[in-house]
Amino acid sequence: MITGKNYIGNTLSANGNKTFKTFNPLLNIENEWEITEAAHDEVDSAAKLASEAYKTYSQFSGSRKAEFLRAIADEIEALGDDLLEVYTFESGLPKGRATGERGRTLGQLRAFANHVEQGNWVEASIDTAQPERQPMPKADLRKMNIALGPVAVFGASNFPFAFSTAGGDTAAALAAGCPVIVKSHPMHAGTGEMVSSAVIKAAEKTNMPNGVFSNLNSSGIEVGQALVQHTNVKAVGFTGSIRGGRALFDLAAQRDEPIPVLAEMGSINPVVILPNALNNRAEDLAKTYAGSITLGTGQFCTNPGLIVGLKSDGLNTFVTTLAEEIVKIEPSCMLHPNIAGAYETNKANAMSQNGLEVLAKYESDVKPNYARQVVTTVEGDTFLNNPTLHHEVFGPFSLVVQCDSDTQLEEIVSNLEGQLTGTVISDDNEISQYTNVVNALQNRVGRIIFNGVPTGVEVCPSMLHGGPYPASTDSRFTAVGVDSIKRFVRPFSFQDWPNELLPNELKNDNPLNIIRNVNGKLTSQKI
Amino acid sequence: MITGKNYIGNTLSANGNKTFKTFNPLLNIENEWEITEAAHDEVDSAAKLASEAYKTYSQFSGSRKAEFLRAIADEIEALGDDLLEVYTFESGLPKGRATGERGRTLGQLRAFANHVEQGNWVEASIDTAQPERQPMPKADLRKMNIALGPVAVFGASNFPFAFSTAGGDTAAALAAGCPVIVKSHPMHAGTGEMVSSAVIKAAEKTNMPNGVFSNLNSSGIEVGQALVQHTNVKAVGFTGSIRGGRALFDLAAQRDEPIPVLAEMGSINPVVILPNALNNRAEDLAKTYAGSITLGTGQFCTNPGLIVGLKSDGLNTFVTTLAEEIVKIEPSCMLHPNIAGAYETNKANAMSQNGLEVLAKYESDVKPNYARQVVTTVEGDTFLNNPTLHHEVFGPFSLVVQCDSDTQLEEIVSNLEGQLTGTVISDDNEISQYTNVVNALQNRVGRIIFNGVPTGVEVCPSMLHGGPYPASTDSRFTAVGVDSIKRFVRPFSFQDWPNELLPNELKNDNPLNIIRNVNGKLTSQKI
Repeated sequence: MITGKNYIGNTLSANGNKTFKTFNPLLNIENEWEITEAAHDEVDSAAKLASEAYKTYSQFSGSRKAEFLRAIADEIEALGDDLLEVYTFESGLPKGRATGERGRTLGQLRAFANHVEQGNWVEASIDTAQPERQPMPKADLRKMNIALGPVAVFGASNFPFAFSTAGGDTAAALAAGCPVIVKSHPMHAGTGEMVSSAVIKAAEKTNMPNGVFSNLNSSGIEVGQALVQHTNVKAVGFTGSIRGGRALFDLAAQRDEPIPVLAEMGSINPVVILPNALNNRAEDLAKTYAGSITLGTGQFCTNPGLIVGLKSDGLNTFVTTLAEEIVKIEPSCMLHPNIAGAYETNKANAMSQNGLEVLAKYESDVKPNYARQVVTTVEGDTFLNNPTLHHEVFGPFSLVVQCDSDTQLEEIVSNLEGQLTGTVISDDNEISQYTNVVNALQNRVGRIIFNGVPTGVEVCPSMLHGGPYPASTDSRFTAVGVDSIKRFVRPFSFQDWPNELLPNELKNDNPLNIIRNVNGKLTSQKI
Repeated sequence: MITGKNYIGNTLSANGNKTFKTFNPLLNIENEWEITEAAHDEVDSAAKLASEAYKTYSQFSGSRKAEFLRAIADEIEALGDDLLEVYTFESGLPKGRATGERGRTLGQLRAFANHVEQGNWVEASIDTAQPERQPMPKADLRKMNIALGPVAVFGASNFPFAFSTAGGDTAAALAAGCPVIVKSHPMHAGTGEMVSSAVIKAAEKTNMPNGVFSNLNSSGIEVGQALVQHTNVKAVGFTGSIRGGRALFDLAAQRDEPIPVLAEMGSINPVVILPNALNNRAEDLAKTYAGSITLGTGQFCTNPGLIVGLKSDGLNTFVTTLAEEIVKIEPSCMLHPNIAGAYETNKANAMSQNGLEVLAKYESDVKPNYARQVVTTVEGDTFLNNPTLHHEVFGPFSLVVQCDSDTQLEEIVSNLEGQLTGTVISDDNEISQYTNVVNALQNRVGRIIFNGVPTGVEVCPSMLHGGPYPASTDSRFTAVGVDSIKRFVRPFSFQDWPNELLPNELKNDNPLNIIRNVNGKLTSQKI
């Protein structure tokens, strides 16, 4: 049952008098449940409770936090098909996607449970004392990662499970020892409440302090602003648009005590197709990319919005085939009328740019909120001189840039904004002749892909999901994989601290049997 | 010889028409050499050269970077006593300090050389492909740290060697693979030029690209501002005042592409003395702290500016002895008339606060620029209600807060701003009764010390020098020790990248023999 209330810690609360409804884009009607926006005092209460909870929760052992994270996964699973149904009602995404994304979300929670239970994530470092050292004795110093403080999490419209309420940011923050306050995404607030109920149930079952998790509803920007400006909030996780992420970043930077905003934002994910590959397999590549461009109605942050190649017969074949293939694909439903509307506007704006040629567009009538895909092309010079063409059109849209020369190809890549991914398609070792292009691409992206598609973000330790601004607000961190815990921790040193008072991670006898840097050597041995 | 020119890459340059002189505070006269401020085109040239140099330098092996770092150390050493003399002329610090600080600086450079030569710092992570995985094959993903881009370094007045031209920030950035542009500190611009000449000589000897290092003179704020706003600069390292660090942070956050500012700023380094310790050894503690407060004329960032204790006979003995001891110490010279002047102003302002009692002040006449130490005391309530008393007075000044109760002690600690260090003085296991106080202190600081003094920052892997704002702008990084390299790197993923094109750190046969996380296990084995 969806109450439409907020979770202020373990308590359902609806002090506010503003309500809103979520929307079923497939049926093009509002969903029946009514959501109550969090009132200002509820934001304040959630932040204060989180700060109190932090005092104990941040000190919990890895095993206790793992128990909590696993219980969250179990409770989400226990919601069964009811949860999947609400997910589809609020996103228009198919049930298969809901099931897959739930699996990913449970996997993330359990991966973080294993990660903190295992314990190496604290990166323990010990330099033992040298009391006899000349001219000054050396103190005993021991360092490990500790939790930063309460984290505000802003969920993404396009991943109601995996990047929302109990998604990657929440799992990472809770694993680190940070209480979480979710600003629920208004497009799937019902899904958010159900997932929150699972988190709260898990918190109660595993005796977590009240306030370790809260969930705030809001259809506007005030709740999020108040949260980011609240003195008790110490970091922000965000997935969404550049405009939204930048607004939060600016607010956080302007605080008396600035706090980090880890925002994963937009990207056009450039794909460079080299000449031999175009010559050898233009048709196959075009078919593959027609699929990647329209996957999930083009609503993935790694959607390939830009394809760059050198003018050639191969490129001609590629654009012709891409044009043929793209219109064969059945349009699908976008997440929300607002997103479908923005797609139409941004698409029209792109298509109105001088020099842009439409290769193919889906022409037939579609149901409301369905997105009609478009592929376009442009000369290299035109692209270089028009920054509008460098911006993301969120949806099934892509632009093929036709270059005159290797130099222009390098120039185009060098002038891109920061990106989540870059892809190189190459045959017959031709890539070795394009070192400058590859290096330039590496400087602009967080992940580089060889002979593949950028869509599909594997959850594993070696994944980097982020990249130079505006792909993210801080390229030094990943938003996916267990290393995303690093966003929410800080290293902390104990000097000459008594062994019995040290955290277990730093005690002489290494009771957790973790790997530590002891006097410069990685070891799990006792001291 | 000091030319007073800027180094724009390897070239001495003085296009500007504004000059200034440094000052000898001991002799209270200007030094003879004339320094020319960098002109705007020189800032621009340095940034562009750095960006070009980044393309090759960032790809250099650990061994090549190590060779460069060691050559820098050797060339600084080769400057011999001439360099030490200029250091003393421009800082008023004694020759012994100059020698010690040079040793620390050389040690840092060589420690970073070893660190990048050894190679584990890239935190290599490899998840091998699973082409048969259902429902989707798993790609091969490999991640490692790469250099962020050109770094602007702002040196500190109080460490002309160790936190300036070729100090910790520069060593860390160069080790990471980032070219460095130093905004030389105007108080020791001659020292800065000499050290820069050593860096440039080392760069030429080891065939580094032109632009890997530049040094810009400036007595105002324009050069620094232009540098932080330059599109080719990708990160900033800073050591200095809260006002200065915050100004750069704000500028960097307002850029179209925001960049990280790693600023290590002010701190009052609270010391909590528990009752048994006060009862057992108030006199010894007072003598020790009289020394720590005046060490280096109170110009260390870890200077103990705040001492907190519970009212007791022990505390009375402590304050009486501290008052007696502090005036026995011979005043010493501050770095510059401006710093001496600011000390007088800030000291007078603190001493004028209601309820503040002066315990002792050095009264006799002193030479110009010498600092007369002061210790003061205040009631817990007064301290809590007057934020002015929470701010640093840079120099040999300290404040003893006398608390009425354990609760007030905890409240005081909880209400402190972020600090570099916190110290607990405790006897007879009394600390176990003060868990709340210790936890509160841990939440406010970057390093916690048991039964010691905060002055003395060991350079070792387990050191954390930084802390919650305003001790630093990002508590997730240290400014001291080899882990400070993490400020200037970003993780980067290769997906399905051909083995022969991968960096050596990620190749199957692990040619560098580094420790890598392979499918979740730390190992140096081949794949």
